[in-house]
Amino acid sequence: MFMLITLTTDFGYRDSFAGIMKGVIKRINPDAQVIDLTHGVPPQDIMAAALTLRHSVPYFSDGTIHVVVVDPGVGGTRRPLLIECAGNYFIGPDNGVLSLAVRNKQKLVIELSNSEYFLQPTGGTFHGRDIFAPAAAHLSRGVPTRAFGRTSSSIIDLHVPEVVRDQNVLRGEIIYIDGYGNLFTNIAEQDLASLPRNQIHIAVGSTSIRNLKASYDSVEVDQLTAVVNSWGVLEIAQYNGNAQHRCGAKVGDRVVVTCIG
Amino acid sequence: MFMLITLTTDFGYRDSFAGIMKGVIKRINPDAQVIDLTHGVPPQDIMAAALTLRHSVPYFSDGTIHVVVVDPGVGGTRRPLLIECAGNYFIGPDNGVLSLAVRNKQKLVIELSNSEYFLQPTGGTFHGRDIFAPAAAHLSRGVPTRAFGRTSSSIIDLHVPEVVRDQNVLRGEIIYIDGYGNLFTNIAEQDLASLPRNQIHIAVGSTSIRNLKASYDSVEVDQLTAVVNSWGVLEIAQYNGNAQHRCGAKVGDRVVVTCIG
Amino acid sequence: MFMLITLTTDFGYRDSFAGIMKGVIKRINPDAQVIDLTHGVPPQDIMAAALTLRHSVPYFSDGTIHVVVVDPGVGGTRRPLLIECAGNYFIGPDNGVLSLAVRNKQKLVIELSNSEYFLQPTGGTFHGRDIFAPAAAHLSRGVPTRAFGRTSSSIIDLHVPEVVRDQNVLRGEIIYIDGYGNLFTNIAEQDLASLPRNQIHIAVGSTSIRNLKASYDSVEVDQLTAVVNSWGVLEIAQYNGNAQHRCGAKVGDRVVVTCIG
Repeated sequence: MFMLITLTTDFGYRDSFAGIMKGVIKRINPDAQVIDLTHGVPPQDIMAAALTLRHSVPYFSDGTIHVVVVDPGVGGTRRPLLIECAGNYFIGPDNGVLSLAVRNKQKLVIELSNSEYFLQPTGGTFHGRDIFAPAAAHLSRGVPTRAFGRTSSSIIDLHVPEVVRDQNVLRGEIIYIDGYGNLFTNIAEQDLASLPRNQIHIAVGSTSIRNLKASYDSVEVDQLTAVVNSWGVLEIAQYNGNAQHRCGAKVGDRVVVTCIG
Repeated sequence: MFMLITLTTDFGYRDSFAGIMKGVIKRINPDAQVIDLTHGVPPQDIMAAALTLRHSVPYFSDGTIHVVVVDPGVGGTRRPLLIECAGNYFIGPDNGVLSLAVRNKQKLVIELSNSEYFLQPTGGTFHGRDIFAPAAAHLSRGVPTRAFGRTSSSIIDLHVPEVVRDQNVLRGEIIYIDGYGNLFTNIAEQDLASLPRNQIHIAVGSTSIRNLKASYDSVEVDQLTAVVNSWGVLEIAQYNGNAQHRCGAKVGDRVVVTCIG
Repeated sequence: MFMLITLTTDFGYRDSFAGIMKGVIKRINPDAQVIDLTHGVPPQDIMAAALTLRHSVPYFSDGTIHVVVVDPGVGGTRRPLLIECAGNYFIGPDNGVLSLAVRNKQKLVIELSNSEYFLQPTGGTFHGRDIFAPAAAHLSRGVPTRAFGRTSSSIIDLHVPEVVRDQNVLRGEIIYIDGYGNLFTNIAEQDLASLPRNQIHIAVGSTSIRNLKASYDSVEVDQLTAVVNSWGVLEIAQYNGNAQHRCGAKVGDRVVVTCIG
């Protein structure tokens, strides 16, 4: 049990920082298995990491330990946390990066204050190595949650923009852009449920798209299309292309869905 | 047996899509071991993935399960496949991406039609997660090949351009460019066998190179050179540099080898 | 014992070269565990790889096998090496890439000359696959060090520029830049020990920074700051930003620390 550890960071792929965390984990628990969720979170992009985590956790076994290191405040006043929630464990800084994965669920929040489980000496620039990886490894060996520090009653929350519904118009925005250039919105499948898929109009910037499709190839190559994607949200994509480049879109851009039925 | 699973995708490294596939696999078979071949296939580049797979398979144990997700037609009419061939297993879409690895070999082709082995609910944009990863995991646990669906008599094939020999001239082309900017051609070592290594002339675009060398460092730093590379094909490289940038070359560019003896 | 193998290369992430090395390793020793330190070393950057290795090794268990493939001279006259040093093993080309990790320590140097442990046939462009991965795998299965070839008395060394101290002035340089754009210098924590943290002035190019901080967030967002980083060296960083872009800095640029007390 508790043997699987995932890593989500903004380290990128040039350096050995993620590899070092694995070395630290394996030295404490050689039987731990580590899976990279991604190290390609844009630098310091707490929201991208929080969304990535939220939409990845459901596909992992109960008892998985998810470590997130997008941590621009490392070594400062932000607290290092361990959260037990719905049978899983979350380790990372208290900057909101863990908050979406545990939102609206009962949880036990522990501040990683017990330096007995830190790497020594403990530096001020790489808590992934010195605090978070050791905590994950010790936890995976069966150290009880409460041994890592004092309990806490709250964590810092992230604000995900809400969709505004005005009669048959949904106003949302782009919240994430993936490596293909697909534009992920905050408009969920349920938000769209009351609208007829074949009588909607989706506007992003100066571009507009007709109707919701079941798959990317429902349009011609290089055409824009709209689907409900693997996160369960409205996505604007270009078939065999890159919608981000095509639309010049960025996170935060408005997306408006209008019923034309 | 059958415990090793490889992944080859065009997901890139920004998102957690590959990590999610590993979560799905581990939840079904905690003992499965997953190796990334690469997630850096250029988006939607079926040929690059098919070549990568073909030249990687020989280095893996018999019984390995190779999963390839370069799948622009996901959720549409293209079929999801499982192919058993020469003691290995291949899982991916029927768009040609598996075809080069199994070409000219006896094979059993199964359409992944048995939804009992799908993740539920099954979406239309990420069959890597919903169909291919579960199939690989169940297969690795010993589910028999034929349980996954109906057999099929054919798969979609990719056309790799052929080398044209005209007396002492070989006309080929660039079929792949690696991360160093090395230019891989479709001219195989056997094609070159009848030519004297030290009396040939290789032309790509406006550039020409004399003779075939045994290693990159047979020329001065920053000079172009030609070698038989790790795929067993003629490669044009720049010693300590990037031939792609140097030559302004791209996949499909003509390469002509002339015997000057 | 000896079951953990790390990989450090300049392969990048587009191709399957690292995946192929893992296939080769697993075919020889299915129980070996492989950890990627990084495959993102800049192409042919021997110094970056050597520094990465030196600063990663201390976080791995004794008996780890570290394989480094930054090898522009592959197939030429440079020798393939196995070094046993301080309870760990290092495998890679004799071009200096292993030298910093084993400097000033007692070591046994073996030239990988016994082709019994090579992949056959052995090519001239990918010794990671044909020589280094097989050596690591056989070593992890217990083949004794001396079985791999003849002992050697020396290896090629890299020159790391030294810090020059002139009264209260330290003259160093940038030796590495990480994926965040943080500028790593050759000025170690010990070099700074005699200077008062709050009365120093750090100059890089036309930029200057006051004082050494304990964490990145000790300054305002987008301000430059100086810290002792996870390698134990003076680092110039931009809080929530990229110091490399900000300063137009590159490896080799001078960094001068002046005491203003």
